[in-house]
Amino acid sequence: METITIVGTGLIGTSIALGIKNANNNLYIRGYDNSPKHSSESKTIGALDESCESLRDAVSNASLVILATPVNAMQSILDTISPLLMEGCVVTDTGSTKQSILSWAKQSLPEHVSFVGGHPMAGKELSGPWSADASLFDNKTYCVIPTETSTKEAVEIVIGLAETINAVPFFIGAQEHDSFVAAVSHLPHILSVALLESTASSSSWDDIGRLASSGFKDVSRLASGDPIMRRDICLTNQQSIIHWIDVFTKELEKIRDLLKQESAVEIQELFEKSRTARETWLAGSNKYNHFAGSNKQESVMDRLGELFLGKAIFDKQKRFRDMLSLKNNPKDRSS
Amino acid sequence: METITIVGTGLIGTSIALGIKNANNNLYIRGYDNSPKHSSESKTIGALDESCESLRDAVSNASLVILATPVNAMQSILDTISPLLMEGCVVTDTGSTKQSILSWAKQSLPEHVSFVGGHPMAGKELSGPWSADASLFDNKTYCVIPTETSTKEAVEIVIGLAETINAVPFFIGAQEHDSFVAAVSHLPHILSVALLESTASSSSWDDIGRLASSGFKDVSRLASGDPIMRRDICLTNQQSIIHWIDVFTKELEKIRDLLKQESAVEIQELFEKSRTARETWLAGSNKYNHFAGSNKQESVMDRLGELFLGKAIFDKQKRFRDMLSLKNNPKDRSS
Repeated sequence: METITIVGTGLIGTSIALGIKNANNNLYIRGYDNSPKHSSESKTIGALDESCESLRDAVSNASLVILATPVNAMQSILDTISPLLMEGCVVTDTGSTKQSILSWAKQSLPEHVSFVGGHPMAGKELSGPWSADASLFDNKTYCVIPTETSTKEAVEIVIGLAETINAVPFFIGAQEHDSFVAAVSHLPHILSVALLESTASSSSWDDIGRLASSGFKDVSRLASGDPIMRRDICLTNQQSIIHWIDVFTKELEKIRDLLKQESAVEIQELFEKSRTARETWLAGSNKYNHFAGSNKQESVMDRLGELFLGKAIFDKQKRFRDMLSLKNNPKDRSS
Repeated sequence: METITIVGTGLIGTSIALGIKNANNNLYIRGYDNSPKHSSESKTIGALDESCESLRDAVSNASLVILATPVNAMQSILDTISPLLMEGCVVTDTGSTKQSILSWAKQSLPEHVSFVGGHPMAGKELSGPWSADASLFDNKTYCVIPTETSTKEAVEIVIGLAETINAVPFFIGAQEHDSFVAAVSHLPHILSVALLESTASSSSWDDIGRLASSGFKDVSRLASGDPIMRRDICLTNQQSIIHWIDVFTKELEKIRDLLKQESAVEIQELFEKSRTARETWLAGSNKYNHFAGSNKQESVMDRLGELFLGKAIFDKQKRFRDMLSLKNNPKDRSS
């Protein structure tokens, strides 16, 4: 039986383990967390077959190692596990930023191990294995970030992992990834934090807070995220986030000017434009989800082919892919 | 049978009408909208007894008139209905800003009509009677803003209205109201719009948008609000919104500096602080909701008494209050 090891059994790690368990019972899932309470809880809820007390125990003989810790913890974990990994092992991660982890993997990992970056675009403001959910990734984009040395088989395994948990694989470079998520994930988090800093620190907050309703609740939601995970994102994606803060500040100044000038027509046009932009995005994000329908596997293979293998036929090295893929998934909705 | 008139049968007006209908069948509800499609739809879904073709028809013989239009439409509506209102009629509104409407009411309405401002702190990004929901106001704060000339009876009627739709009345002055909602409602909307302006205008938006997930969806949600309603809010609460934009910009600059300096400890402390602030607010907003429990009516009367009537006994002038109050509400959850 092949072994998959999850390092970091919080919300994301445990949700991935649950997703794999839901799809496939022929894999042995080990978990390790530097908080033993987290890994034992993850085992209790059925996400893991085994909760390990050491990284060494966790990764020995693993075919696939998934790092699901805060980003900054990954560097020392890679250093620690590097001499322990078996030949042919595939290592991936779920970190919110990609350039740092790719460079750490390049430094740490031996040649007989292949690394492919990953990032499922899903989350919750709640953290810990208690908040895990096997359906967290359903139809969500799963960024796949190969390195120069990722083998074809390793990339296929990470694709297979994404499909197994019902996510939609999406190839992207590390630099693009970090800039794009800064815009749509890290900037919104900073805005939530700054909104709370601006309002909840007010001496009238007891009364102001009574008037806060669902709008405030939504716009501030990301501020409830895990502080350490969020800190690590800021420290490993500092430049991109600052870039988008600056873009945002300019847009905010423009809107301030329109208010100052009482420019009724321009204000209404702006609000119409942004409403349309959001509706178009919402419709588009449904469109991406169709990609996850019955032709998903074929499309992904086509895209993988374009990117990595030209016109070659994908008829070999499918050990892990077949094992993980929806073909063997009793819950396959395309059958 | 007493008549209540709703002017503006969109999301809020129709939801109020549905809430009253749910609680009490002994009231006749008329509606008027400058889009006849809206008022006839409101009647079709059972919110209105009558959809009127003119403001004159709508307000004649009304005991209570509720203005639920965008704020800037209210001034001319007040001018139009002023000579048509019967003696003792109570006029209230549901506008998101209060100083303008209070001054317009003072200018327009005759002495034999009493005005009390109102603002239910609930909404949706969807607009129109199609999105109406009788439970929209359940346990939500309902700001009640009396004027210098509001009669005790008029204030009690608006309190009764709030309670009838299961909201929690909250007394506040117009200036405070406008500043507070600028902080927790209008600023968040502006942030949503500026976030979309910053990101969706990018030439890479097709790819960036694929990486946008639930965080982006929540923080941008308010940008889907009705552009005209939002424009009117900006035009009638310009100074308060600009004040809060400036407070926000300073906080955002501070966070930008922390990122620039890679101040790991301070960044983590900030995120912990804002997470705690949000959790405290969430717990507090549940606390307010308890106010809406079995002792609601008594508490509201106590508060009303403190504010307006000293130690007087509330044993008279209850015609409308009794008619509207939860005492007659078959769905009263406190009984």
